[in-house]
Amino acid sequence: MTTIKTTLLLFLSCFLLFSGSAFAQEFRDIADDKLFIIETGEGKVYVELAPEFAPKHVERIIQLSRSKQYQGTEFYRVIDGFVAQAGPGGKQNLTLAPLQLEALSSKNSDYTLVQSNDLFAPFTAFSKGFAIALNQEKSEYWLTHCPGVVAMARGNDPHSATSDFYITIGQAPRYLDRIMTIFGRVVYGMDVVQRTKRGVTGENGLFPNQQQPTKILATYLASELPEKHRPGIRVEKTEGGVFEQKLQARKNRNHAFFFEKPPAVLDVCQVPLAVEFEAPETPN
Amino acid sequence: MTTIKTTLLLFLSCFLLFSGSAFAQEFRDIADDKLFIIETGEGKVYVELAPEFAPKHVERIIQLSRSKQYQGTEFYRVIDGFVAQAGPGGKQNLTLAPLQLEALSSKNSDYTLVQSNDLFAPFTAFSKGFAIALNQEKSEYWLTHCPGVVAMARGNDPHSATSDFYITIGQAPRYLDRIMTIFGRVVYGMDVVQRTKRGVTGENGLFPNQQQPTKILATYLASELPEKHRPGIRVEKTEGGVFEQKLQARKNRNHAFFFEKPPAVLDVCQVPLAVEFEAPETPN
Repeated sequence: MTTIKTTLLLFLSCFLLFSGSAFAQEFRDIADDKLFIIETGEGKVYVELAPEFAPKHVERIIQLSRSKQYQGTEFYRVIDGFVAQAGPGGKQNLTLAPLQLEALSSKNSDYTLVQSNDLFAPFTAFSKGFAIALNQEKSEYWLTHCPGVVAMARGNDPHSATSDFYITIGQAPRYLDRIMTIFGRVVYGMDVVQRTKRGVTGENGLFPNQQQPTKILATYLASELPEKHRPGIRVEKTEGGVFEQKLQARKNRNHAFFFEKPPAVLDVCQVPLAVEFEAPETPN
Repeated sequence: MTTIKTTLLLFLSCFLLFSGSAFAQEFRDIADDKLFIIETGEGKVYVELAPEFAPKHVERIIQLSRSKQYQGTEFYRVIDGFVAQAGPGGKQNLTLAPLQLEALSSKNSDYTLVQSNDLFAPFTAFSKGFAIALNQEKSEYWLTHCPGVVAMARGNDPHSATSDFYITIGQAPRYLDRIMTIFGRVVYGMDVVQRTKRGVTGENGLFPNQQQPTKILATYLASELPEKHRPGIRVEKTEGGVFEQKLQARKNRNHAFFFEKPPAVLDVCQVPLAVEFEAPETPN
């Protein structure tokens, strides 16, 4: 490290401390058959699927991916700060049965509480690595639209989703919670998603002109690759004392940088989860 | 428009409606001497400065820009979903007087209320095109850290900011409200900011290796350009009945798409403001 870099680090050290990576972390592996990879013209995007929350949607995604229905399609609707939407859409004559909405669960999964009286829900929490919201009195649990979630597009009929999905790329559009089915979240490659070409805002993010949207080159599960081509992805565990301490530390902000303490609250969508990415032995 | 496009549009029409551009809008011009342009290796970023909220910081930015202190510097600290930070930092021997924090105001500016009992503040609102939060009882008003705000970095001392700035690129880090000075917001070119190269997360977003951060090629006010090179930027007005109706519509969600209505609340950072960009007569 050069002297210049050292000076820079010293100069910045205080401002850097609140980024969260100073906390202890525990990790878990993502199983190869839950790791959905989207190869785009901008790079690869790695999605952890959520079959515990949206089994039929995950099944559909895997089925369409295996039959190469996403290959060659485009992120045909991209609005900066909102969503990047992709899929075969109306471009192919898919006669797929529409899916029943899977946005709300009455199953009491294990969770780690984050916040009560969240603006949009009585409680927020993490469950199995996903940000959720809950209404305990009504036994209602749902995945929330934090940045980087992957959810299925639909028409006005709540049970009309078939094939196209969107990835949230800006401030959490929490008003879509409970009415859209989230089936995964980007665990690695969100910078790639952020590089997708934006559509025309006044045209609802579509590409009515000559501009080329970002293409999807291929999609597959990691488990569909030969072992040597599989990446290893480990993400921060959202259960246990270590994670609970991190949440408390983010609420309490004891560092001197916080000369005035912020309110002791946490936005569940503003709790970055650490990730470790191990490139495959042989790139595919 | 081809038949395929028409089919696609029909197929998507319902899902597209909630993006917000269906509302009526009123616009205002951004004065050339408040439009700060950052030319980066990825394209141009257009920032509306906020001298009403942070006069000394705006003055400093303009002074440093005029003396070309940002030219050739880098976005040397970039954490996906958090901030892209740039400036001369420790790389130059600037002996600049540290700035007094300008994060909190007791001046009662005009504002349009957005939400009471926001998670982080008693009230949120828009004032002069900026998202603010307020505590009316204490006569406290402050700009909030929504995505796309531009704020000055500092050390632990609240009054230690000198030259480097960050742009928020993910879920609003509202815990920085009131303790960091926001002096502007990106009104156009947020997609460019999103393309800045990410640093190493485990290294606090720095670039300890060979990877090249995104460079700043030049910075200037639009007013410093010859007239023919100045872009015209008009942004949505955040005062008046038309805007208030938009806020109400975003709270109430009367469209059939919302088969179950979301809570009638608004996250002040999830209210996209429309923008009209007119390219300069002659590109510079």
